[in-house]
Amino acid sequence: MELQEKIPVPIFTDVDRDVFLRQLCPQRRPAVLRGVCLGPCLEKWTVEYLGQRGGDKEVKIHVSTVPQMDFLRKNFVYKTLPFNEFVKRASEKKHSDFFLCEDESYYLRSLGEDVRKEPADLSKQFPDLAEDFHVPHFFEPDQFFSSVFRISSCGLQLWTHYDVMDNLLAQVTGMKRVVLYNPQDALHLYLSGDKSEVVDIDAPDLKQFPDFVKAKRYECVLEPGDLLFIPALWFHNTTALQFGVGVNVFWRHLPADSYDRKDPYGNKDPVAATRALQALERALHTLDELPADYRDFYGRRMIQRIQNRTYCDSQPATNTQTDCGSTLPSRQFTKPG
Amino acid sequence: MELQEKIPVPIFTDVDRDVFLRQLCPQRRPAVLRGVCLGPCLEKWTVEYLGQRGGDKEVKIHVSTVPQMDFLRKNFVYKTLPFNEFVKRASEKKHSDFFLCEDESYYLRSLGEDVRKEPADLSKQFPDLAEDFHVPHFFEPDQFFSSVFRISSCGLQLWTHYDVMDNLLAQVTGMKRVVLYNPQDALHLYLSGDKSEVVDIDAPDLKQFPDFVKAKRYECVLEPGDLLFIPALWFHNTTALQFGVGVNVFWRHLPADSYDRKDPYGNKDPVAATRALQALERALHTLDELPADYRDFYGRRMIQRIQNRTYCDSQPATNTQTDCGSTLPSRQFTKPG
Repeated sequence: MELQEKIPVPIFTDVDRDVFLRQLCPQRRPAVLRGVCLGPCLEKWTVEYLGQRGGDKEVKIHVSTVPQMDFLRKNFVYKTLPFNEFVKRASEKKHSDFFLCEDESYYLRSLGEDVRKEPADLSKQFPDLAEDFHVPHFFEPDQFFSSVFRISSCGLQLWTHYDVMDNLLAQVTGMKRVVLYNPQDALHLYLSGDKSEVVDIDAPDLKQFPDFVKAKRYECVLEPGDLLFIPALWFHNTTALQFGVGVNVFWRHLPADSYDRKDPYGNKDPVAATRALQALERALHTLDELPADYRDFYGRRMIQRIQNRTYCDSQPATNTQTDCGSTLPSRQFTKPG
Repeated sequence: MELQEKIPVPIFTDVDRDVFLRQLCPQRRPAVLRGVCLGPCLEKWTVEYLGQRGGDKEVKIHVSTVPQMDFLRKNFVYKTLPFNEFVKRASEKKHSDFFLCEDESYYLRSLGEDVRKEPADLSKQFPDLAEDFHVPHFFEPDQFFSSVFRISSCGLQLWTHYDVMDNLLAQVTGMKRVVLYNPQDALHLYLSGDKSEVVDIDAPDLKQFPDFVKAKRYECVLEPGDLLFIPALWFHNTTALQFGVGVNVFWRHLPADSYDRKDPYGNKDPVAATRALQALERALHTLDELPADYRDFYGRRMIQRIQNRTYCDSQPATNTQTDCGSTLPSRQFTKPG
């Protein structure tokens, strides 16, 4: 493929709460934090240990015949397994017991007790394992939204999407490749809701998605013990290079009433954004009174107005708080591994 | 300058009402109609004759020290002269009587009697001259909106703008260069309202207006007797290559209630478009509740939605009525002169 510009995600060492809050978080850019203490999970969380301590609690999992999971075309099925049986299967490449085929892929995104209302919380659903994992206290307790177990077969790739909460992805075991895209590249990602239609980001169909090459590709490989800061709205695509266990911690970056109350996954747009998109629908409905060429023209006039009013790089940087294209601090920067 | 793609405006001969209504008008593309009968004005309208028959009625005119008139920076003044005195001055290069300097440029866009309410109508403001000019009856009488005298000094260039009515520009005397841009190129023209900020289209400042090169430049040179069809919303920029007299005839392409009632110039957006732009303002006001990077992102989400809903070339062409990118008929086409 014609290549996307590639940018390594910077790695920062010795990041404490103060450095994170003052220097990294305000940049609204992804960063790998290496060497933050995650607790005894790093040594303890073998397949055997996870099975014993996690027990036979039933979990709902994604199962697919291919490792590249495609949410838009739903090439996977949801199945239920006891947690210890699931961990065993996800860690092996060929299965004696299986649903679809002997090399099927597994993926767990843990859920709350009431899956429609409650966000996932490791300390509630897996209390015996949760004590091994130390959530970095990089935000106030009342900002906490969810902590989500992510367990994947080797090779498992998840579709490119964004979340509306700030997110620390803790990689506990296994290596994971993460590709990220800036929210400002949204128009190059062919979105359907919060997901990109470009499923194969390494060999995209450029006839169908010609602008995809314009998106800048941020990339990193997480090692056990790494934390990846994924700011709200940043698109991400993960590939498990090995059987892997991770925990996502989501928290509210905006005031609590900015978010949709009925959103256990943390992927519904902020209420102001939803209202704006609804007002836009009314505007488009009004334009339907005009012929196609008038609609096209006034659609472009509307786009020009939106660009002038909302684009960060078209606004004069009057102060750094409203400037969302600021640079990363050079302090504590180590070359990407 | 890095060059814009250049496209000659096609010239059609032997166009009658039927050909215009069935073949040309529905294409929504500019076209030069050569050889349509415009009446005795073609022979009669000399400077002397215009002065005698038009009389000393006072007219409001644009006067500038340079031939390139810039509406956005208002580099001209409005003055009042008797019509016969104005025609004499506009036809000469050096003036013994003048307002600003001895080589000042003049431009008349005739107005209605009550300039704030009534559209210009040649038959009302200049009845003795109007009988020499035969308006082509290419539309129903109740679609008629205005007929506007346009009289320019040699060299006079008018800013790039669009009108919301369909328009036949009849060139009666003198040659005129007209450059046009497709409404679909709106985002490349750096609009301020209905006008482009790119004043010098032949030597644009590409640092300030880098996307201007992406706009396709349609161009023609009108000779006495030519009619230029300028569909509503097409941008146009005119340069009088000689002292020239023309008449614009505007008519309603959309149902009469689609237009703003208080619009003697025919350049206020259709009411549905104005309402859509107002609804968009409310949407943008709602987005102001979010931080800059969220505004930027949801601005782009809105743009994606507008592109999907309004762009002609992104919609499958289900029928030719909604397809605004259709091709010109090859019949009656002669090579541009």
